[in-house]
Amino acid sequence: MNLSGQNFIAGKRRGADATFKARDAETGALLEPPFAAASSQDITDACTAAGKAQAAYANLSLPDRARFLRSCADHIDALGDVLTQRAMAESGLPEARLTGERGRTVGQLRLFADEVEDGAWQALRIDHGDATRTPPAPDLRLRMVPLGPVAVFGASNFPLAFSVGGGDTASALAAGCCVIVKGHPAHPGTSELVAGAITAAAAETDMPEGVFSLLNGPDNALGAALVNDPHIAAVGFTGSRAGGLALMDLAAKRAVPIPVYAEMSSVNPVVLLPERLDEAAEVLASGYVASLALGAGQFCTNPGIVLAIDGPALDRFIAATAAAVADVAGQTMLTASISHAFVRETRHLASLPGARMIGCGKEAADHAARAQVHIVSAGDFIADGAYAREVFGPSSIIVRCQDIAQLQQVLEGMEGQLTATVHMAPADYPEAARLLPVLETRAGRILANGWPTGVAVTHAMNHGGPFPATSDGRSTSVGTLAIGRFLRPVSYQDWPAQLLPPALHDTPTTALRRIDGIWTVG
Amino acid sequence: MNLSGQNFIAGKRRGADATFKARDAETGALLEPPFAAASSQDITDACTAAGKAQAAYANLSLPDRARFLRSCADHIDALGDVLTQRAMAESGLPEARLTGERGRTVGQLRLFADEVEDGAWQALRIDHGDATRTPPAPDLRLRMVPLGPVAVFGASNFPLAFSVGGGDTASALAAGCCVIVKGHPAHPGTSELVAGAITAAAAETDMPEGVFSLLNGPDNALGAALVNDPHIAAVGFTGSRAGGLALMDLAAKRAVPIPVYAEMSSVNPVVLLPERLDEAAEVLASGYVASLALGAGQFCTNPGIVLAIDGPALDRFIAATAAAVADVAGQTMLTASISHAFVRETRHLASLPGARMIGCGKEAADHAARAQVHIVSAGDFIADGAYAREVFGPSSIIVRCQDIAQLQQVLEGMEGQLTATVHMAPADYPEAARLLPVLETRAGRILANGWPTGVAVTHAMNHGGPFPATSDGRSTSVGTLAIGRFLRPVSYQDWPAQLLPPALHDTPTTALRRIDGIWTVG
Repeated sequence: MNLSGQNFIAGKRRGADATFKARDAETGALLEPPFAAASSQDITDACTAAGKAQAAYANLSLPDRARFLRSCADHIDALGDVLTQRAMAESGLPEARLTGERGRTVGQLRLFADEVEDGAWQALRIDHGDATRTPPAPDLRLRMVPLGPVAVFGASNFPLAFSVGGGDTASALAAGCCVIVKGHPAHPGTSELVAGAITAAAAETDMPEGVFSLLNGPDNALGAALVNDPHIAAVGFTGSRAGGLALMDLAAKRAVPIPVYAEMSSVNPVVLLPERLDEAAEVLASGYVASLALGAGQFCTNPGIVLAIDGPALDRFIAATAAAVADVAGQTMLTASISHAFVRETRHLASLPGARMIGCGKEAADHAARAQVHIVSAGDFIADGAYAREVFGPSSIIVRCQDIAQLQQVLEGMEGQLTATVHMAPADYPEAARLLPVLETRAGRILANGWPTGVAVTHAMNHGGPFPATSDGRSTSVGTLAIGRFLRPVSYQDWPAQLLPPALHDTPTTALRRIDGIWTVG
Repeated sequence: MNLSGQNFIAGKRRGADATFKARDAETGALLEPPFAAASSQDITDACTAAGKAQAAYANLSLPDRARFLRSCADHIDALGDVLTQRAMAESGLPEARLTGERGRTVGQLRLFADEVEDGAWQALRIDHGDATRTPPAPDLRLRMVPLGPVAVFGASNFPLAFSVGGGDTASALAAGCCVIVKGHPAHPGTSELVAGAITAAAAETDMPEGVFSLLNGPDNALGAALVNDPHIAAVGFTGSRAGGLALMDLAAKRAVPIPVYAEMSSVNPVVLLPERLDEAAEVLASGYVASLALGAGQFCTNPGIVLAIDGPALDRFIAATAAAVADVAGQTMLTASISHAFVRETRHLASLPGARMIGCGKEAADHAARAQVHIVSAGDFIADGAYAREVFGPSSIIVRCQDIAQLQQVLEGMEGQLTATVHMAPADYPEAARLLPVLETRAGRILANGWPTGVAVTHAMNHGGPFPATSDGRSTSVGTLAIGRFLRPVSYQDWPAQLLPPALHDTPTTALRRIDGIWTVG
């Protein structure tokens, strides 16, 4: 592995006076090499280069843009085992997970390349003029254009799929926006490898310099400076609620406010309806513990709250959950500070008067998490918002409800969520149907008889939800619909045909269009 | 005319202790009757009723929702001359304009009724599952759902088309959102008449109570309380920059921040390229003065800035403009405070060292505006932002540029705009092509050889633009694309077919869908 420790600014590596090092997630040992902490000048240079490249990048043909995305995927694929090894050391995640995550990352890039070429995201609309009308109807043609350079914040919990070459980068590049990534300080080596791949892809496919930069830094000052740079037109972020709220605040106070897409926190309620609980308490307990312990619980879709109605079936579920969680081995967490926060927050949860721990996993080493499940009555849960607060890691809380009315009351009191899940047998369908309108206002994705971890990258996926699950529940961060976040409409009125963008010509195109009100494909 | 002076709260009229009166725009005389100023309890009751009605309204069939919108249009049509007369007195706008605006208003409602039934705005996507894949692919189905109750602020300059039953109300109702209108205090009688029509339509078509309310009040406290009510999920506003910024600030500081769609201010630059200017200076001057004086210049698309290159053709344009503007009669403005602001701001403009008035209209009565055109050098314009500030009313400023490079520099320094216009002959096309990428980043609608006033209500219209033209340049307030402002995606994963919303069933539908990645119509 050959790491320079440098930032990437508009296609060129650049060092810095100040440096910082990553740590081995498992041992806490410092890892070589030292990484350059981006200076104010570096930030300005990267943003200025993005601003300068923006028009050229936006106006590339769609096949050229797609070729760049596919080349990014190929170059990331080509990093092979070097990437996995460095990501394992920096994140503590196991090899199989990171191999899978690399597949997800390159799959995302290729899916967005296909989406670029599909072209429907351009929202092409043509209304032909009519001079005989009073007043005369103008010729109007509309398309989506990119917002401008996007600042993407790498997430610690997906060092590949939601970091330098992850979902936000893929969707912003697909939309025609230049990207400046603020690398997560927990995995700068992983970031450098991926940024090298993207930089090589940009050079190979003749992209304008400035289409992509990576800036590293050990603290929050870098991110704040990036969001405040006047060239930046939007922000993509996955991380803590405090971090997301801070970025929203910065962005709203700019001279020109910009949209922030922050995916922040979610406890992902799971409802176990009575008939299904009775027929499958043990199966549900096994699925529940597997989902909450997956990846040391470090997923935004971790099932943090389970709602069920008191009775013998719930007692069976609790007993089986306690037995299953006792078998969970300690798992290294992403960073020491995440590990410390997990210990602090689970202790706080255990100290609440209404909470009782029903089971916990095996003893865990330093920097590793011990999975645990608590239980609380719905009355206590409703009375104190502390029970509903997200604990990042393998912790979950079962809420024991007296009846379906109280269960619904708990749901109605909850904040916005990424997901909500209902386990149901056919005999439970009437209750599920009654809960659905509540769930639709509270969550971005609603599951039946599954577990919320595992977010498929498809056309119909929504990974977003009402505040505070995200800063802006009108969009998704996963799946092809994400391209829409980084676009805005422009109408062209009576613009001469020969000066129109090619996509708005009358000549047939393969992209979906709406012509004089009629939807036409191909 | 039979006005009660009462607010409409969830289908019922209700008076209040405090009252205020409208004034005749032309004479300043108080108009009867007194209007109830909504109390805190009225606001809470209207918002609570909207919250309660929201799920029922959202889940109506699309034909039922469309029927309501069409009935609104029919009932507004049926108001006939009574509506026009009251609106004339309250706004000072002439009869022909208000008759046209009523046509636009009912046309908008009917267009959105058609759009509801078109159904493509639901963004229906179905990805069938595949159990044979590793990991198994879930069945995912996505649709758009309404954000929730919307607070709509009536605008003074469109007492019909952007007020109680105007564009924001039509698009929000079309999206499935209940609406609470904050009536503009300049035209409470007009507001009551339209609210009565909508309330009658809601009763006639069996809409849930709470689908629509109208609250009046003489000051800003009502609007602030409305934006802060927890039931409100989004805000639609057309008005001043100060007003829009205040609402953005309130919305961002809520416990749950909500989107604000504020259309605020724009000077709508118009570029006269040399060949076209030379061949048609006098024709352009005539069109320019007609556009800037239309409706006493009280349009957000008023051509406030004209850019041209120094030379004999510009001198001809200036002379013809001066002659044309001298013929413009004084026109009553919407309110006394708008009229006072116009006098204050045009005096300020005239006092700037680089500005020179080249022509003004005929003497105007109290509350009426005297049209005027100023000129400034590009150097002075660039040096002092005061020249680019919007003056609401029939005032415009010509910026004399040394060459095309300086003209482009002026454009590059401008804030976000609703529109940008280029007048060009074929020989000017190369320059127009070079300016286009700049215009695309600065404006929401780009016109050739026309004038920005007059906003067609069609599918391909965008009436929006980068900040500060609007608070959120990702959407439009005019045209069918406006429905998208009030929607958010929800995915259903493995949800039982019989519990799915009908639109997400596999059975064929007339609405555009994307099934397994393929766009299908009908």
